[in-house]
Amino acid sequence: MRVAELSRRTGVSVASIKYYLREGLLPAGERTGPNQADYGDGHVHRLRLVRALLDVGGLSVAAAKEVIGAVDDERVALHGALGAAQEAVMRRTESLDDEASSRAEKVVDDLVARRGWHVHPANPGRRSAVDVLATLERLEHGEVAGLLDTYAEAMEGVADEEVGAVVVREDRGRSVEGVVTGIVLGGALLLGLRGMAQESGSARRLGLGLGGGVQRSVK
Amino acid sequence: MRVAELSRRTGVSVASIKYYLREGLLPAGERTGPNQADYGDGHVHRLRLVRALLDVGGLSVAAAKEVIGAVDDERVALHGALGAAQEAVMRRTESLDDEASSRAEKVVDDLVARRGWHVHPANPGRRSAVDVLATLERLEHGEVAGLLDTYAEAMEGVADEEVGAVVVREDRGRSVEGVVTGIVLGGALLLGLRGMAQESGSARRLGLGLGGGVQRSVK
Repeated sequence: MRVAELSRRTGVSVASIKYYLREGLLPAGERTGPNQADYGDGHVHRLRLVRALLDVGGLSVAAAKEVIGAVDDERVALHGALGAAQEAVMRRTESLDDEASSRAEKVVDDLVARRGWHVHPANPGRRSAVDVLATLERLEHGEVAGLLDTYAEAMEGVADEEVGAVVVREDRGRSVEGVVTGIVLGGALLLGLRGMAQESGSARRLGLGLGGGVQRSVK
Repeated sequence: MRVAELSRRTGVSVASIKYYLREGLLPAGERTGPNQADYGDGHVHRLRLVRALLDVGGLSVAAAKEVIGAVDDERVALHGALGAAQEAVMRRTESLDDEASSRAEKVVDDLVARRGWHVHPANPGRRSAVDVLATLERLEHGEVAGLLDTYAEAMEGVADEEVGAVVVREDRGRSVEGVVTGIVLGGALLLGLRGMAQESGSARRLGLGLGGGVQRSVK
């Protein structure tokens, strides 16, 4: 199909398609003329994946490229795809090297030991958890830090089911795609469900009616 | 203190401070001369909050402004702050109006009914969950959709503890700040812990050693 048809089938503008082609997020079509190329169903699927990572998963173009790279790289196995997707989905912040950081590292390492997890020091999630805890200490908000074990237990159960749900397909690329969409979109789904459960719990505990939902309410 | 001292104490560059002042993320200092202003401890704290929302929470400047606005607006009560923070943290995507969307809406509504949650149709988490499920269907990746109830149960327990941990302080602004940092940074913490638990579970199930961690591994 021509680029116009690819655009029609996916709802992605021709300008965006050209941008993704330039950025290497979408492979080039088969050249059929000096200014013309032919695209197939693989392009339709890839375009949907790119939009899912950018729009629904909230990845940057650079992070989406990393993830797509893992899907396309024949040398990347499933466990490796996990690493690439986590790296893409976690915030990369410049950690301050202060006392709050050292304390947060110790809190996370103690948690890992307490739960018997096997976690590499370079795990992107570990770095992210340390940053969050150090930030909360600097802001003097201890509420979330007190929930650390609740969070860890919930995530242990979730992660165990997630790892068990990984489907190894004959097509390595599709298997890896399942892992990366699971990490990126699964994270968004978790937070979406958390949002609904928070509203429901808040309305119940605070005895609020549901009229306003979570709209900004006025005292 | 002068802006240079504010920069030194927070590790935020003077250029960034001036940008946040222009964007209204940081209130103006007290004017002490034609080109000089005096900043207090409140500015140090606010600057840390701004950086936490942007860097660790991954919010856009526009979303951070919304959240800061809720902290500063005396009319916003705690339940309202929940809505403002959720609105800021959830992705705003243009939902396609196709069959996958309709099916995803029904799946989410059934889940809400099954769990007895009270959720307003405009809840930002609901919109996000619907988008994720519709996207996964379009990509033909059902792995995550099969975990919906596992996810919902885990998030119900987490949200219940989170709502219970809300501390009502004498200072309304600080209380609201606790709610918004809890939602934004708590979400990042949850995903960080999920990342560690995934590595640990994956290494155990796949029988992989820990040497490579989640580094990209080569088959």
